[in-house]
Amino acid sequence: MSGRLAVIGLGPGDQRYLTQEAHDALEAADALYGYAPYLDRVPARPNQTRHASDNREEGARAQAALRHAADGANVAVVSGGDPGVFAMAASVLEAVESGPHAWRALDIAIVPGITAMLAVAARAGAPLGHDFCTLSLSDNLKPWELIERRLDAAASAGFVIALYNPVSRARPWQLGKAFTLLSRHLPGATPVIFGRAVGRGDESVTVTALAAAADASADMATLIIVGSRETRLIVREGQSPLVYTPRAVEGALT
Amino acid sequence: MSGRLAVIGLGPGDQRYLTQEAHDALEAADALYGYAPYLDRVPARPNQTRHASDNREEGARAQAALRHAADGANVAVVSGGDPGVFAMAASVLEAVESGPHAWRALDIAIVPGITAMLAVAARAGAPLGHDFCTLSLSDNLKPWELIERRLDAAASAGFVIALYNPVSRARPWQLGKAFTLLSRHLPGATPVIFGRAVGRGDESVTVTALAAAADASADMATLIIVGSRETRLIVREGQSPLVYTPRAVEGALT
Repeated sequence: MSGRLAVIGLGPGDQRYLTQEAHDALEAADALYGYAPYLDRVPARPNQTRHASDNREEGARAQAALRHAADGANVAVVSGGDPGVFAMAASVLEAVESGPHAWRALDIAIVPGITAMLAVAARAGAPLGHDFCTLSLSDNLKPWELIERRLDAAASAGFVIALYNPVSRARPWQLGKAFTLLSRHLPGATPVIFGRAVGRGDESVTVTALAAAADASADMATLIIVGSRETRLIVREGQSPLVYTPRAVEGALT
Repeated sequence: MSGRLAVIGLGPGDQRYLTQEAHDALEAADALYGYAPYLDRVPARPNQTRHASDNREEGARAQAALRHAADGANVAVVSGGDPGVFAMAASVLEAVESGPHAWRALDIAIVPGITAMLAVAARAGAPLGHDFCTLSLSDNLKPWELIERRLDAAASAGFVIALYNPVSRARPWQLGKAFTLLSRHLPGATPVIFGRAVGRGDESVTVTALAAAADASADMATLIIVGSRETRLIVREGQSPLVYTPRAVEGALT
């Protein structure tokens, strides 16, 4: 089978985060599949078709792209951030596993990108400079009890925590509950970073304390990083503070 | 103060992972600081000085770069992967916090890159498609007991686990001990990915099972991803298997 399917990470925001590999893979594709706002970020090229779909149609999009690749085309599925972190790569592989056996013979490539967590961390300093956990706060695809258990495990073991999908219209209370739960393990002064739309014109990165985090606003475009007991804040005159987690652990954990 | 210091992530391996932002920041710098093999990956430019240092001299390198920036230069500290993940960004900010107050007035920027975990995951499929933890297995800067506690917490809560710095000449037994510990929480068939030198000519990515992982070879250039109970393997004829962690959690955790 001659078809090829690449799942390509665009990084967050504008073109600055695009890698050379992603640029080349986009240029080589016969057809692009993706959520419309991500497709809009890719310059149009002659002889390249575009197939936009809605944000919640990952499964159907993956199947359509695989069918197209199985016809012999070079197909690209575009994804914001990194396709492997709460994005399209897992959807495509789920479709491969449950689809026609012939799809396994396709040339399938995942092209990594800068995921939101890395871009937000970079804007704030180096909050992920030591051990960290990354989880989605959405209970659409897993029970809320499991999310609570993971937050407990991560905070009590001293991991910094990056939260994807913190809030949506259908999930209004989960983020506040997560902060309440984390406050059982962490001091109120623990730095919390809210990064929204990083790399876009309306980018916003703010640093607050865990005790005040419930009052900060967040939406589906927000990535949140909650520090550990080791995370430090460097205050600067006339500039936003720098947040970082040292490479060495000084004291024992409580 | 007019000086600028950028900590720039080159991504792993060759130029394919370099972002547009990192490319532009490297081009704009008056001086480059870094571990020699990373500097070697940056094309030489006229009027740009190079200051190579050894791998274990992060603190001294950070201070030298900050002093140079404080003289008014545009200084770049280059880092493999992402500078914020077990790399130079935290070292630079540690030096800022403990250094002369004037260093806080510098224009300090962190330029994110593709960290090894994302590149290895992409080569193998989408093993980080659901919640995951990232930790360094080095007990040079934290007690081994804390690493064991974090491995326990991560595995028992169902996180996929990415391990940086799995082994070195001075730390020969820690990785085997980590696999033994993880085996208490996870089935022997759990997929384990060993990614070495991804993006380089001598790249190697292998998938094994947790029960056999202790027999696989690893070194400081290896990044290891240990799956969760949810992680799946798609076997393919004549091609390496695809490993992925589904977006949805099916059953309850044990």
